[in-house]
Amino acid sequence: MKIVRIAELITNAKTLVEKNEIVTIKGWIRTNRDSGKIGFIEAYDGSNIEGIQVVYKSESTINFDEAKLARTGAAIYVQGNLNFNSRNSQYEIVATEFKTLKQSDEDFPLQKKQHSMEFLREIAHLRGRTKTMQAAMSVRNRLMFAIHNFFQANGFKWIATPIITSNDCEGAGENFLIQEDKNKPFFTPQASLTVSGQLNVETYAQSFGRVYTFGPTFRADRSHTNRHLAEFWMIEPEIAFIDLPQLIALEEAFIKNICQDVIKNCSEEIKFFTELHPEIKDRLNHLVSKEFKKLEYRDAIELLKKAVAEGHQFEDNDIFFGKDLASEHERYICEKIFNCPVFLMNYPKDIKAFYMKLNPDNETVAASDLLVPGVGEIIGGSQREDDYNKLMERTKTLNIDVRSIQWYIDLRKYGYYASSGFGLGFERLVMYILGIENVRDTIPFPRYEGKISW
Amino acid sequence: MKIVRIAELITNAKTLVEKNEIVTIKGWIRTNRDSGKIGFIEAYDGSNIEGIQVVYKSESTINFDEAKLARTGAAIYVQGNLNFNSRNSQYEIVATEFKTLKQSDEDFPLQKKQHSMEFLREIAHLRGRTKTMQAAMSVRNRLMFAIHNFFQANGFKWIATPIITSNDCEGAGENFLIQEDKNKPFFTPQASLTVSGQLNVETYAQSFGRVYTFGPTFRADRSHTNRHLAEFWMIEPEIAFIDLPQLIALEEAFIKNICQDVIKNCSEEIKFFTELHPEIKDRLNHLVSKEFKKLEYRDAIELLKKAVAEGHQFEDNDIFFGKDLASEHERYICEKIFNCPVFLMNYPKDIKAFYMKLNPDNETVAASDLLVPGVGEIIGGSQREDDYNKLMERTKTLNIDVRSIQWYIDLRKYGYYASSGFGLGFERLVMYILGIENVRDTIPFPRYEGKISW
Repeated sequence: MKIVRIAELITNAKTLVEKNEIVTIKGWIRTNRDSGKIGFIEAYDGSNIEGIQVVYKSESTINFDEAKLARTGAAIYVQGNLNFNSRNSQYEIVATEFKTLKQSDEDFPLQKKQHSMEFLREIAHLRGRTKTMQAAMSVRNRLMFAIHNFFQANGFKWIATPIITSNDCEGAGENFLIQEDKNKPFFTPQASLTVSGQLNVETYAQSFGRVYTFGPTFRADRSHTNRHLAEFWMIEPEIAFIDLPQLIALEEAFIKNICQDVIKNCSEEIKFFTELHPEIKDRLNHLVSKEFKKLEYRDAIELLKKAVAEGHQFEDNDIFFGKDLASEHERYICEKIFNCPVFLMNYPKDIKAFYMKLNPDNETVAASDLLVPGVGEIIGGSQREDDYNKLMERTKTLNIDVRSIQWYIDLRKYGYYASSGFGLGFERLVMYILGIENVRDTIPFPRYEGKISW
Repeated sequence: MKIVRIAELITNAKTLVEKNEIVTIKGWIRTNRDSGKIGFIEAYDGSNIEGIQVVYKSESTINFDEAKLARTGAAIYVQGNLNFNSRNSQYEIVATEFKTLKQSDEDFPLQKKQHSMEFLREIAHLRGRTKTMQAAMSVRNRLMFAIHNFFQANGFKWIATPIITSNDCEGAGENFLIQEDKNKPFFTPQASLTVSGQLNVETYAQSFGRVYTFGPTFRADRSHTNRHLAEFWMIEPEIAFIDLPQLIALEEAFIKNICQDVIKNCSEEIKFFTELHPEIKDRLNHLVSKEFKKLEYRDAIELLKKAVAEGHQFEDNDIFFGKDLASEHERYICEKIFNCPVFLMNYPKDIKAFYMKLNPDNETVAASDLLVPGVGEIIGGSQREDDYNKLMERTKTLNIDVRSIQWYIDLRKYGYYASSGFGLGFERLVMYILGIENVRDTIPFPRYEGKISW
């Protein structure tokens, strides 16, 4: 008998009920309760979030007693007829036959009651079986696919940039070193885990024109916040022959496209999260339908000064041109002033990375961050410095080891015209779209300072 | 004037010629030669491999002299009319206007002559601009996308398994340790780079039923062969409720599907590589159209013994049940005996990993390798041991640290029925499909023992 996945059953439910066809599923028990002659199992197989109710009856279900004894977590086999239950307006399976394929121990930690996200993190090998994690990981999966679809449809090539590297793109000094268990060094010079694939992916933008890297990146950051991971996935496209305004247009089209995709393809999951976090409904609508605001950094400073003058209290009220804005300032701009996503553009060079293109004013760089209500910055992008001498000068000024990136600077010698790109932290995007409070719940096995168990 | 990518020009060439429309491209120079009044540039923008020829003429091209001086590697802007050149049966642009957007230095290393792959590896930041690397990375890109498409279309969820881990799945002891630049440990216990995502992804197979991980994995392997990388991408699907024969059927459908996809979507690249390596034509045809052979390990041993008895000389002629076959034996089976891909099944337990399901004979495990002509093993898969006690016993017998994987063994307590999965090394697949001789040329920035420059 062909096994059918629950999502497929529900899609074809009407026909299956009409034809009174026998269906067969394999899955697991979320809950099981019985009242003597009749029992109800909430079963799931991972093809949808809600699973399906299985009704078993002493009079008509083979192995009725076995069904009564099957515990939460058990793997089961159910054969029966699909039925529309008019009381809860849902489809259910009325079982003709039941089998426990593998019983679950009584100490299975995911019993019916609600668990805290903290508790679930302590059982990362089992938390994937909760609806919350299923919904989150399902959206994560779809977002990943939407991202690849967007880039592939637009002629981008995926380039795997190396995890093991000897350059430190951001110069933050927060990298994990790699060591091997023997006396002889494996790599020279000292290798570390990448903090960004940008420098490497820029090389292939000069080959394919449009490329992106999408892979894990690392920060040895000891801050225990709800926004930091030591290991996180990053999307970094790089495009030859475009400047900052064109980059910004691409970013907006990209965000709108992948959000629309998720709204369309993850309606069950979005509904689930909207019940937990009602604010995400507006958030998603904003993202797909409102035009994002474009604002000069210089003008943002004036707006913040005005807010302070008018009595708004920031934790840090010292606003001046040249300031590296804190999250409270960024959020004030996109939440209070504009109430929509805002591109901030042309930052002072001294608060931005060495590779960003110096503007003709010699004071600002062609960089832009995308600020979103509720979170703050989610994308950082820039046009890259294309002038060999200017790039070399910035590298030296910022005390970056030229030897380790001479190859990168050399790209500017060989037909390097305008090139622009951005970086988007994948987990922060998942967090933002679903209203998840802690980034540790957006990735199957989060990594942060401390115990590493799985 | 709208910039159009060359691939798009060629797709729409017939109409563009008929309408005599003006087109504009931006790209780079592969070669440039002129004979006084007329010049020819081979230009590319990465949207196809062959690029397009640009003809410039003193009588009709604005900036004719600039065009003459533009060097290999230079970024250029070309406006002109598309023309069908009947001498070489190709489309070309007859330039009305030319601009050098950014000149290339005279020492640009990729001049017209052919370069060895060894030389190109020494300039990994520039080799992406060669046709060979463009074709290889383009197929790599498409294969990645075909893999995601296959799994997504079949209801699998992508699960990111961690790079930083404290378990050593294969027990090979060849892992890179992670260290941070400070005195206080960041992770406890000692963390290392993953050698496989399997143990982690199995947890989510118990949630979604069908999952896969596709990400970088690592081996601190000092062998300098044409098949080994210290950092490589691996595809590892895991499926609940299926056994070894069903897994094998999935593997075959998977390989056939992604190869068909590449044949369909990378015809220019496959043509390019078929000229370099004519053997890949048959290879690809075999993969998509021939049914793969299924053979018991036990029977393979008999066939090899027979070959030796009949006079075939292996480097190692000592064939016996329990032997871990060498590449020469694997290749003999799939090349000489069957001349098609071969699934070898049910290996002796002592030459396979601890997590594989013990067969009722107590001697073999439900494991299978896929052997392919020209390479040998490309996939290793197995049904997993679902019995808690048997798995615990194998773990201890093989001296694997139980504490680090107690969570993995515990999965068997909570409804763990049949679960099966396989691992496929992505770079070896690219190598195989394109006939590339060295795996270092299948990944943008290869990592192996020694100097690390990019």
